[in-house]
Amino acid sequence: MQRFDSVAIIGCGLLGASLGLALKARGLAGRVLGIGRNQSTLDRAVEVGAIAAAADASLIVIATPIAKAVAMLEDLKAVASPGSVITDVGSTKRAICERAAQLWPEQRPFVGAHPMAGSEKSGPEHARATLYDGAVCFVEDLPGSPAFDAIHALWAGVGARVVPVCPARHDETVAYTSHLPHVAAALVAALAGRRGDVRDFVGNGFRDTTRIAAARPEVWTEICLTNRDAMLKGLRDYEHWLADFRHALEDEDAAALENYFAEGQRARHDIVGRTASPNPACEPAKPTP
Amino acid sequence: MQRFDSVAIIGCGLLGASLGLALKARGLAGRVLGIGRNQSTLDRAVEVGAIAAAADASLIVIATPIAKAVAMLEDLKAVASPGSVITDVGSTKRAICERAAQLWPEQRPFVGAHPMAGSEKSGPEHARATLYDGAVCFVEDLPGSPAFDAIHALWAGVGARVVPVCPARHDETVAYTSHLPHVAAALVAALAGRRGDVRDFVGNGFRDTTRIAAARPEVWTEICLTNRDAMLKGLRDYEHWLADFRHALEDEDAAALENYFAEGQRARHDIVGRTASPNPACEPAKPTP
Repeated sequence: MQRFDSVAIIGCGLLGASLGLALKARGLAGRVLGIGRNQSTLDRAVEVGAIAAAADASLIVIATPIAKAVAMLEDLKAVASPGSVITDVGSTKRAICERAAQLWPEQRPFVGAHPMAGSEKSGPEHARATLYDGAVCFVEDLPGSPAFDAIHALWAGVGARVVPVCPARHDETVAYTSHLPHVAAALVAALAGRRGDVRDFVGNGFRDTTRIAAARPEVWTEICLTNRDAMLKGLRDYEHWLADFRHALEDEDAAALENYFAEGQRARHDIVGRTASPNPACEPAKPTP
Repeated sequence: MQRFDSVAIIGCGLLGASLGLALKARGLAGRVLGIGRNQSTLDRAVEVGAIAAAADASLIVIATPIAKAVAMLEDLKAVASPGSVITDVGSTKRAICERAAQLWPEQRPFVGAHPMAGSEKSGPEHARATLYDGAVCFVEDLPGSPAFDAIHALWAGVGARVVPVCPARHDETVAYTSHLPHVAAALVAALAGRRGDVRDFVGNGFRDTTRIAAARPEVWTEICLTNRDAMLKGLRDYEHWLADFRHALEDEDAAALENYFAEGQRARHDIVGRTASPNPACEPAKPTP
């Protein structure tokens, strides 16, 4: 099992703090230093501290929001020790991995990662050592690179199922499986909010569909901006489908409407499985005699 | 407490079967007769049986899908006993309530209802006597009518919180809080399904946002068709918001994007509350020391 003598985690939100707890709990790290006022801000003083701490670390984890992460990577180039490795936890991979490839044309120490373990709950107060247990963690596919082996071992070591992936393919796919669903949920919630007091009119459907709208706006703004091309394509596709659905409804074309719902149902089953319902409100209960 | 001598429940899916269990469990009914092969179909033979059973009932509950419910109401006009009352459980109220007002220009026995207690799980095998406990049940607002009092008492009797509502206002509102979220979820799932095998790329966000896409296509087709005007308006609004969001992303207008997410977050908090997270995957866990 790969073990890191000293780890610097820059940004102590849910993901960074949980990684620190997991490394400690599993005995995978000697010293773990977490740096960051909170998940949303790293002011200049903290940045200086982060850089100083990172200089001594054998593993540096950038766990800040994504725009800050790219800037941090640039700062780290000057100070990271030879032989140390760097990873991140950002939801988009193309922007930061392309920047890393520019900064280190060869033998780069940075290998991007995206553990699929976030939630609408943010902040270190929700952190837990088991956050990554069984979660998928995408790791930038750089076979043959020593840094890839180390970062692969890191995420596997804290319990994640590592999936090597090309950053562009990653971003194109998560546009449809994560970022577009997020925008859809946020706008559904915002539109409903314009109807006045609708609290009596919401059921489990609304609650689940809009749950991720509770996430932090600035984080999702950065995600959309760093995955702009794929998101623009996804949004255009979604708008077209909605317009086609609306035309079918205008025409009272029941068969066409049912086709949309049937495709959604089938896709949901194929992707998530028929039994995956983490919501206890939806679990079947035994009929009372 | 209002008590019904004999109850006929036409359509034995989740909602009809649960109502039967609840009436029995609470001692609110003498004889309860459930009629229906299953939730999706009532063939002609069953319909004849339903009509015969309904003729003797003091309370008739139409718990079929909504299009079938309107047709059933027409059949019931000829046979329902004087003094009996009729209600339904449909997700849209304007179509059936307007038809009832035509069928019975005065002293009408039908008062529409919409208990907000469905889920993506359908069928009597998921039925339970407690399904309506604490759920909102909309009841068509017909103050001063004896049937209104009886139907109000019925739903309150099985544990629901009765909210009297005008059918048109009901349908306009649920278009935004239930039907549009459903279409949004179904199309998000369908679009993701077109990307090939994306099972590794979905997290809790996708799972929750698309949960209701697992519901039965034919039911939602009928809901959209019987709430066509309000749904067309909701879909147009949603398409406009998505297009505006996309333009902001094209312009890399971070402030505008963040405003959308912030409005969605605020609306979700206002409507559902900050703490309402029925999903255990999202509950904060204690950090492991």
